[in-house]
Amino acid sequence: MAAPKWGPVERVATYELVIEKIEEQLVSGALGPGDRLPPERELAALLGASRQAVREALRVLQALGIVRSRQGTGSDAGTVIVPAPAHALSRVLRLHLAVSSFPAADLTGARVLLERASAAAAAERRDPEAIARLRELLTAMDADLGREEFSELDTKLHVAIAGSAGNQLVGELTAAVRESLRGALLDGMRAEPDWPTLRDQLRREHRGVVEAIEAGDAPLAADRLERHIRAFHVRIDG
Amino acid sequence: MAAPKWGPVERVATYELVIEKIEEQLVSGALGPGDRLPPERELAALLGASRQAVREALRVLQALGIVRSRQGTGSDAGTVIVPAPAHALSRVLRLHLAVSSFPAADLTGARVLLERASAAAAAERRDPEAIARLRELLTAMDADLGREEFSELDTKLHVAIAGSAGNQLVGELTAAVRESLRGALLDGMRAEPDWPTLRDQLRREHRGVVEAIEAGDAPLAADRLERHIRAFHVRIDG
Repeated sequence: MAAPKWGPVERVATYELVIEKIEEQLVSGALGPGDRLPPERELAALLGASRQAVREALRVLQALGIVRSRQGTGSDAGTVIVPAPAHALSRVLRLHLAVSSFPAADLTGARVLLERASAAAAAERRDPEAIARLRELLTAMDADLGREEFSELDTKLHVAIAGSAGNQLVGELTAAVRESLRGALLDGMRAEPDWPTLRDQLRREHRGVVEAIEAGDAPLAADRLERHIRAFHVRIDG
Repeated sequence: MAAPKWGPVERVATYELVIEKIEEQLVSGALGPGDRLPPERELAALLGASRQAVREALRVLQALGIVRSRQGTGSDAGTVIVPAPAHALSRVLRLHLAVSSFPAADLTGARVLLERASAAAAAERRDPEAIARLRELLTAMDADLGREEFSELDTKLHVAIAGSAGNQLVGELTAAVRESLRGALLDGMRAEPDWPTLRDQLRREHRGVVEAIEAGDAPLAADRLERHIRAFHVRIDG
């Protein structure tokens, strides 16, 4: 007979259970943007929860940008589900990645997957405005920059490539994963004593990616971006 | 001369600015799991914000699973950064996708990208336990199920494929995108008057994907999963 397994009791705050109930309605599609939630008192009764728990849950959902509350009695009053702006997703994802315990290889793998797709899509679209923006960033990075300034523009370049892909959701996911690595990538630059040589190499790699995008060569753009990412991650993931 | 461009003033609540400041410390790596935040009063002074704003920010971070607060004065008291469990990311992402206004084509594109990668990785790994789980789900779906029950297992199957890919982060992203579509996918099933025929087709497609994974044929697994996803999304995205 197997020995009994004991684990700590999971304490879940009531407001979290209220959030879960509201989430179920959102995910099933029973509730959507523009819909009004029942008044606090009624919602508490429906869920068998205290008004305090309902109030806390609504405050959290409001902070997440999921609902909006208006005081008063007019037609606009009450708690309404709002369409979340895309960048709110990115912020929340970034926060989570910053404290989550995913192995470094998982983050690199996700980066490669998402950024390959973004580079390929950017090459297929060849949007002149997006390419002009990438060129601008390349030029800015040609200046005699220190690691911090270069790293900031590096993040902007990768996020701009993600943004040129024409799929806003994939762009947000890519940007969030890349941005969550900002600190680790800067540390990788700091660890290299011969900064000018590393900087030259990164510039060449970036230029190669942008040229492939400009030429509309999707597989080449994806391969070059993957090589660029992996070469740097070998430094920082060890 | 260009005409002046007017846009609405963006009102950002103070607690959001507090969250941003804490996020900066997390992303730069200056703060990490296990670290303690300064006491509320001190943090308010450091950030030039009200204690109310700090309290609200901490409540939101707590709801997101980023910090944990303990009352009292012991060594365990105060607000501590906790390593976020991977599934917390999935929940927050799901909530956001449920109310976000990404075009349907973006969601389909992200699904295809992530699920292709997951299926290919699952085929490369050929993990016997993961494959046994997929087989179990296929068998359960062979029963005479209504749309709701079938749809539940359908979600589980896709999430299980994502989970067999060996990259936990990609798995969580895939599961979140797939789960956020749960309601829309069920509606697609409800819209089909000849349910037994649609169910048979979905079963065949699922079986084909799992067989390719079992055979270790990564490109075939990815292609079959993409065809399966696109065929269904044509129904629901129109």
